[in-house]
Amino acid sequence: MALKAQVLYDFTAEPGNNELTVKEGETVTITNQNIGGGWIEAQNSRGEVGLVPEDYIEVRECGDDFSISSLSHPDTACFSRNLASISVHSASNGNDPWSVWNTDPSGGSNNNWASNPEGTQTGKNAPDPWGSHGHPQAYQGPGAEDDEWDDDWDDMKSTGGYVESESGDSGAMQRGGAHATSMKISLNKFPGFSKSGPELYLLCKQFAKGKDKLPIYTGEVGPVWSYPESQLDCIVADPKKGSKMYGLKSYIEYQITPSNTNRPVNHRYKHFDWLYERLLDKFGSAIPIPSLPDKQVTGRFEEEFIKMRMERLQGWMTRMCRHPVVSSSEVFQLFLTYKDEKDWKMGKRKAEKDETVGVMIFSTIEPEAPDLDLIEVEQKCDQFSRFTKAMDDGVKEILTVGHEHWKRCTGPLPKEYQRIGKAFQNLSTVFTSSGYQGESTLTDALTAAGKTYEDIAQMVAEQPKKDLHFLMETNNEYKGLLGCFPDTIGVHKAAIDKVKEADKLVATSKIAPQDKVTMGKRASTMSYALQAEMNHFHSNRIYDYNRVMQLYLEEQVKFYETIAAKLRQAHSQFTTM
Amino acid sequence: MALKAQVLYDFTAEPGNNELTVKEGETVTITNQNIGGGWIEAQNSRGEVGLVPEDYIEVRECGDDFSISSLSHPDTACFSRNLASISVHSASNGNDPWSVWNTDPSGGSNNNWASNPEGTQTGKNAPDPWGSHGHPQAYQGPGAEDDEWDDDWDDMKSTGGYVESESGDSGAMQRGGAHATSMKISLNKFPGFSKSGPELYLLCKQFAKGKDKLPIYTGEVGPVWSYPESQLDCIVADPKKGSKMYGLKSYIEYQITPSNTNRPVNHRYKHFDWLYERLLDKFGSAIPIPSLPDKQVTGRFEEEFIKMRMERLQGWMTRMCRHPVVSSSEVFQLFLTYKDEKDWKMGKRKAEKDETVGVMIFSTIEPEAPDLDLIEVEQKCDQFSRFTKAMDDGVKEILTVGHEHWKRCTGPLPKEYQRIGKAFQNLSTVFTSSGYQGESTLTDALTAAGKTYEDIAQMVAEQPKKDLHFLMETNNEYKGLLGCFPDTIGVHKAAIDKVKEADKLVATSKIAPQDKVTMGKRASTMSYALQAEMNHFHSNRIYDYNRVMQLYLEEQVKFYETIAAKLRQAHSQFTTM
Repeated sequence: MALKAQVLYDFTAEPGNNELTVKEGETVTITNQNIGGGWIEAQNSRGEVGLVPEDYIEVRECGDDFSISSLSHPDTACFSRNLASISVHSASNGNDPWSVWNTDPSGGSNNNWASNPEGTQTGKNAPDPWGSHGHPQAYQGPGAEDDEWDDDWDDMKSTGGYVESESGDSGAMQRGGAHATSMKISLNKFPGFSKSGPELYLLCKQFAKGKDKLPIYTGEVGPVWSYPESQLDCIVADPKKGSKMYGLKSYIEYQITPSNTNRPVNHRYKHFDWLYERLLDKFGSAIPIPSLPDKQVTGRFEEEFIKMRMERLQGWMTRMCRHPVVSSSEVFQLFLTYKDEKDWKMGKRKAEKDETVGVMIFSTIEPEAPDLDLIEVEQKCDQFSRFTKAMDDGVKEILTVGHEHWKRCTGPLPKEYQRIGKAFQNLSTVFTSSGYQGESTLTDALTAAGKTYEDIAQMVAEQPKKDLHFLMETNNEYKGLLGCFPDTIGVHKAAIDKVKEADKLVATSKIAPQDKVTMGKRASTMSYALQAEMNHFHSNRIYDYNRVMQLYLEEQVKFYETIAAKLRQAHSQFTTM
Repeated sequence: MALKAQVLYDFTAEPGNNELTVKEGETVTITNQNIGGGWIEAQNSRGEVGLVPEDYIEVRECGDDFSISSLSHPDTACFSRNLASISVHSASNGNDPWSVWNTDPSGGSNNNWASNPEGTQTGKNAPDPWGSHGHPQAYQGPGAEDDEWDDDWDDMKSTGGYVESESGDSGAMQRGGAHATSMKISLNKFPGFSKSGPELYLLCKQFAKGKDKLPIYTGEVGPVWSYPESQLDCIVADPKKGSKMYGLKSYIEYQITPSNTNRPVNHRYKHFDWLYERLLDKFGSAIPIPSLPDKQVTGRFEEEFIKMRMERLQGWMTRMCRHPVVSSSEVFQLFLTYKDEKDWKMGKRKAEKDETVGVMIFSTIEPEAPDLDLIEVEQKCDQFSRFTKAMDDGVKEILTVGHEHWKRCTGPLPKEYQRIGKAFQNLSTVFTSSGYQGESTLTDALTAAGKTYEDIAQMVAEQPKKDLHFLMETNNEYKGLLGCFPDTIGVHKAAIDKVKEADKLVATSKIAPQDKVTMGKRASTMSYALQAEMNHFHSNRIYDYNRVMQLYLEEQVKFYETIAAKLRQAHSQFTTM
């Protein structure tokens, strides 16, 4: 007897992906229950067969009454469903892969800043410069069919273990604008934070005896992390297409070659995501862990999409490698240097069991300098808060003007140069028809001048990819990074508030007088960590902005020089002799 | 007893010009009837005193009944009034001195082309590139008060003799868009044409015995005018403000220094206009006489306006000097080389009495080559007609795209560069607040880069005046010149048609058989004249377009090279050492 199912929610198939579009209330026949990865194969009443997310349908024996799910609102329903279906569901959110951006154009970051009550939010209403017509335009197309690359959640059930951690959505900015914004409801917003405030650390009686101590030294610029002698680096390259589920679903595997072993390892996007979640869990209270590049970046062509994602994964990995604490962590090293499948799986299990996560990371931090008093701690914290907010505004301004410049350079401006070029060439054609002798020098020169302006049109249109792109990428990366600070600084402020309450807690005998002293010492440790992190941030920022400005201006110089040279050549053809 | 007057039409005073705004139906008191130049001084009921055009009011003895003019519609009224009041009236046509352009944006040329039945009119709907926001923008302003410079008609009555000739409006293009388009109704559209068709020449029994014969030689390129050994040139310079009517009205006098005498003479715009009318009368059937620069070109500042008008008068004079027939004519030489007031006045009177005008100019033309048959005459004519029309379209296209480019370069583009510059500088300010050591190299460099983009913004905005301006001016001049061809070619076509009718005229005994032979010979002479003129046009065109393109590209090269150099300098300040 054929197995029938009732469709609970609308699902729109993605082209070329063997999926089947179904409507809420529709009845389908299950043709294969053993697809795996959260999918089943079904046939609709018109005889069409394709994959449908299994959580979108309710299976019943044929002839049974329908028992419609009581979870009639899909958003509510998502709570109880696993991420595979949610991910798919949100992908069905219309044909425009950028629609989720449009609904929340400013990304998650505003919420973060807004939740920080002291801040004025000047950049709040700025349009997302990475919206539907901006910089990523180059990688975007109406017929984006690349969600087949985006199946990072599709074997969650079979591998197990990911679900819990992956359901935790970071509060970070890039993530906020990502794929599942409107659907993925954070059950566990900030693992080490929502489970427990900083008091878990401030009042902890006994720290776990770990090996991984994080010393903080006093450098020229103040507190600094311990930096390795040679900086780790890695190359993300050689994306390869793989497939599973009898070739029905495919994915991309990247080759990552770390500079310490020089031995490549392979990872899919979902492994990066796993790493991100681990790093966020472990270090997020002390170190801003930027989100991974958006899963939903789409491309007109597979090649463009893959190139773009790889470029951004490279940027993310480089930033992680550059961080002395992150790069030397066991989980990061596992990711870069695992020997084989068994090694990887064991390492994963160990990492997921790590208990020194959330605010407890501060228990491993050991500043060499004397304790700071609370006023100093608070001053530093406020200073960093002001700075990161101001920089967030500045970065957003650059993204906004860069976005507009991008649009002009790829839209009206080259069109205008093209029209100038055409007008010169048309006049040349008219002149050729004059029947007058000795015209050809002028008409040849006019045609050449016209073609030069057409060349310039093309140069103008292509230039943003050569320079503005990197300026935008760097600022976008910093926007993501800065979006993490409100959480990191929030932990810090909460700790300061706790220490301020200490007297009252002692008075009401909720803590012992000695606990108050401990709290102060630990707040000082947290401040050293924040200062070390800010100094790390500043030093990287100075390097990054010098580098990106050099690159930008270098390409701009080349651009204008090339135009000048082309025009000089065109000029030489005219003669008044 | 105070002399009272009834106001017949609204008149809006121009600021700073001692004028008085009056409304139709209002009663004013005449305070001075002896102002002259078509003006009287009057006082309104609020005690305000100022000049009012005398034709705008009807004087009556106080106590008399009003006898309202029966010419109640001002446009109709204009017919019967002299040009002084019409000029003033049309100037009162709202505050926007460009409004007359807007009502007839394509100028008079379309009518000319349209009246030429064989032509397709591709450029017909193109917006006037010199409309209210384009190239002349730089010379335009809301508070344009420069009509005081535009009093070229104001002493018409006193000098006399101009009225008749000046009331004739040329059909030429630039004139079509000029000041009095909607008001100045042509009573005598094309003097030598409307009075008589080409038959006046074709069938003339006896030509006047003149001294000025115009030979046509056969050159390398075909029929050519007789060119002088050294080309005449002149310099229009040193504009000086003069005044009259007790200083109430002022005007500008230009100094013109011809290369043959090197002795400067002074002329006001109205003298140029007189010369134009004479040249049009005399040569217009054979030689396109471009209109003078529009009287109504306005400027934000007196200096800009005067500079612009002078530049265009220079262009017009240069073109006239370059023409071998025009430049050697008695009237043109009079204009350039009159010795004193008496000489000038006598010369004027003589020129105005010249009877070899209109089609009769062909009677002075003497081609050295054998007669052409009618088929050849017609082919040449059609070829020139096609070419000039095609070039008219090409020129208008350049003006249209140039106009748009002008708007972009002076509008949104520099604003965008300014915003980029500001964004860099703002980020620099944020970075300065970091409290991190060793920041100053980056922040100084970022500030410098920001300022560089502000410099670029200014360069972009100012560049069109340096290059596009001349490209636009040259093309505008050619647009004006090409707008004369339909009339010149029209005379030619009418002559061809007449010759085609000759057999019928002979058959009906309207002309003698010998007359038919004469007509054929004379049509051949007209064709030689047209060919000589076209060859003159082509040779000038090739020179002019080579020259303007050289100039344009040279300035463009400089522009891009300067930007590249500035960016290179900005680049050098960043360091990743």
